[in-house]
Amino acid sequence: MINVIGIGQNINTMTLEAYEAIKNSDIIIGYNKYTNEISKLIEGKEIIQKGMGDEISRVEMAISKSIEGNKVALISSGDPGVFGMSNVLFQILDKYNEEIEIKVYPGVSAVNYASSLLGAPLNDFAVISLSNVLTPLSEIEKKIEYSLKANLVLAIYNPISKTRKKPFRQFKKLVLDIKGEDTLVGIVNSEEYPSKVSIVRIKDLLEDEINMSTTLIVGNDLTYEIDGHLITPRGYVIRSPQHPLSIDFYEKFLEGKSPCGPDRECEFYPCHYDGQCCDFCYCPFYPCGDSSTGGRWIKGKNVWNCKDCLWIHDEDTIKCVKEPLEEIIESPEDLEKKKKTLLKLRRACLLNNDPNNL
Amino acid sequence: MINVIGIGQNINTMTLEAYEAIKNSDIIIGYNKYTNEISKLIEGKEIIQKGMGDEISRVEMAISKSIEGNKVALISSGDPGVFGMSNVLFQILDKYNEEIEIKVYPGVSAVNYASSLLGAPLNDFAVISLSNVLTPLSEIEKKIEYSLKANLVLAIYNPISKTRKKPFRQFKKLVLDIKGEDTLVGIVNSEEYPSKVSIVRIKDLLEDEINMSTTLIVGNDLTYEIDGHLITPRGYVIRSPQHPLSIDFYEKFLEGKSPCGPDRECEFYPCHYDGQCCDFCYCPFYPCGDSSTGGRWIKGKNVWNCKDCLWIHDEDTIKCVKEPLEEIIESPEDLEKKKKTLLKLRRACLLNNDPNNL
Repeated sequence: MINVIGIGQNINTMTLEAYEAIKNSDIIIGYNKYTNEISKLIEGKEIIQKGMGDEISRVEMAISKSIEGNKVALISSGDPGVFGMSNVLFQILDKYNEEIEIKVYPGVSAVNYASSLLGAPLNDFAVISLSNVLTPLSEIEKKIEYSLKANLVLAIYNPISKTRKKPFRQFKKLVLDIKGEDTLVGIVNSEEYPSKVSIVRIKDLLEDEINMSTTLIVGNDLTYEIDGHLITPRGYVIRSPQHPLSIDFYEKFLEGKSPCGPDRECEFYPCHYDGQCCDFCYCPFYPCGDSSTGGRWIKGKNVWNCKDCLWIHDEDTIKCVKEPLEEIIESPEDLEKKKKTLLKLRRACLLNNDPNNL
Repeated sequence: MINVIGIGQNINTMTLEAYEAIKNSDIIIGYNKYTNEISKLIEGKEIIQKGMGDEISRVEMAISKSIEGNKVALISSGDPGVFGMSNVLFQILDKYNEEIEIKVYPGVSAVNYASSLLGAPLNDFAVISLSNVLTPLSEIEKKIEYSLKANLVLAIYNPISKTRKKPFRQFKKLVLDIKGEDTLVGIVNSEEYPSKVSIVRIKDLLEDEINMSTTLIVGNDLTYEIDGHLITPRGYVIRSPQHPLSIDFYEKFLEGKSPCGPDRECEFYPCHYDGQCCDFCYCPFYPCGDSSTGGRWIKGKNVWNCKDCLWIHDEDTIKCVKEPLEEIIESPEDLEKKKKTLLKLRRACLLNNDPNNL
C-alpha cells in the first residue's frame, strides 16, 4: 500500500490523517528537505531520502517496496496533487502488473498558506508553475496571459531558480503589459520559518527577493492593500438606511428629471472635481463597502465614506450603469431591496464586463 | 483575538494547528453544518451558529466578542481564503477603531480534496465559483472561457443550487464549445461521507448529479482516464536505451536522407494507417510515457507501446516538430541527452504552442 502524503507547508499545517498515516507507515520515502521537516514523527522507521529531481526513482522505489508488502509513505510538501508526487505516480503505475492500493492525502498547498499570511488576496484564481524544465515557456506564457486578461488572481509557484530566470522575466513583463506597473503582488518566502511576507507593486518586484521557496500572489483589478494586508473583495451586502436626499434624487431620476453630465448650476458643483458628471449625484451602490475604488470606512463610526471614490462621476461609468439601472429599479426602495443585483451591476461596469448579463 | 480557521473537508483533513486553535478558543462561531462536523471538539464551549448567508453577522459577532476579550474561532469549511470567511472579515475590519489580532489558519480546499479522490487531475489550474449571487454572470463566463482557452485544468466550486441553474448551463456550454463533448470531468460529491466520486464526459454531465456540495474538475487537453483515475501528465523523463534501427534512422534524418510524407516503397507501409506520413519512422520522443496521445505501458514488461498513438505520423505534427528538432539534435545520442528539451517540443506541438519558445 502506498500513502501519498501531503505534509502541508510545515508540521503545523499537516492534516490529522496525514499525521496518523505517517505514524502507521513502515517506510518513509521523500526528498530530504521534507523528511527533515517531520524527523521527530518518523524516528525509528526505514527512511529513504532521495534528492530533488529523483521523482521517478522515488516513485519506483515506493512501488517496489509496496509490492514487497510494506506500508509506504510517499511524502510531498504541500499538496501531492499540486506539482507534487501524485501525477508521476499515477502516470507510472500503469506499468505494473500488480494491483497496488493507493491513497492520496491532500494537504495545504502553497497558495492557501501564502493567502493566510497575506490576509485575503484570493477570489477566483489560477495556480501556475514557472518551471519550464518540462513545460514549454510558450505554454506558460499563454496561461499567464489568459489568466491576467480574465482578471483571475494569479498564484505563481517555482518562480525562479539559480539557472532559470527567463520565465520569471517573462511573467513580470506580462503583468506590466497587461495589468500595469501598480499591480499588487504578495510575496511569501518560506525558505526559513517563520515565512517572510511582503507586498509590493509589480514594478518593484526584484529577482533578488525571490527564490524557489517563494510563492507570489498577483492581485486582480479589485485587489487593494490596507494595514499590510492584501485584500480582494468578494462582495457583500451592507444594510443601511437610505438618506432622504437620495430618495428624493432617485424619484427624480426615475421620472427622467435628474441631471446629465456636469451640473454647473448646482451650488455644490464641483463637489469632487471639475468636469465631474452629476448623473448620479447620490451613488446608487452606496454603501458598497468595497475599498477597491477608494471608499473607506470612517473608523469607529459605522459610516461609509466615498470622499476618495470618483468612479461614479466618470463618463464611462455612467454610460455603463444608467440603462441597466433603469431596468433594475422601479422605485427608490429598490436600491435597498435589489442590492445584490446592483452590486453585480457595479462590478460588471468596474471590470468592463457585460452589465446586461448579471 | 480572532482565529479564522479552515477545518478542511472533514475532521480528518483538519490541520494540527487548526485542531489546537479550536481547542484553545473560548467562543466558536460558524455555520451549523461546519460546527456539527467538529461537535466533539467544541463540547462545553460557547457556540454561536448562524445560518448560511449570514456571513456579515458572523463576522461582526466575531469582532465584537474579540473586542470583549475572548479568543474567538471563526470557522470556515475548506480554506478560509477560498470563498471562505477571510475576505469578508478583512473587508469589514477597517470599520473598527480597535486593534484586533487576527490569525488565519489555512485548510485543505475542495480542489485539493477532490483531486486526491480522483487520482492526479491537476497541473496548472484555475479555481472558479459559479455562484452569481454577488458576481455578474458575464464575469464568470469570461473567466471560464479564458481558463479553457489557456488549457488550464478547471476546478468549479458552487456549481449549482436549487434556484441557480443558469451559470452551470453556461459553464457546460462553454466547455462543449471550446473543448469538445469528450472533455473529461471529475465529479466529487461530498454531501455525505464518504464522498461519491465519478468521471464523465462533459456531454454526459447532468444537472441532477450535482449540487452545492459538489466540486467539478475539468481536465485539460492532455488529461486521460485509466482504471477509474483522472490523470493529467506533468511530464517526466524515462531513461531507456535507444533501438539500433532508431539510431540508423536519425543518422539518415540528420543527413537529410529520411523520407518525407507517406513512404509507400517501404515493405511495412502502412504500419499504422493508410496515408500516414513516415518522416518520423521512429518517434523522436520515444518513450514519452504520456498516455494522453494513446501510448500505454505493456504491463509488467517495462516497455512503452505506441501502437495506438498515431500523432507522430500526422502531417501537422511533422510540420511543427521537424525544424525545431533539427535545431535541437546534432547526433542520435542527443535524443537521449536532450530528452527534457524534446519532451517540451512534443508538448508545444501537441498543444499548438510556439515550438521555438521552449
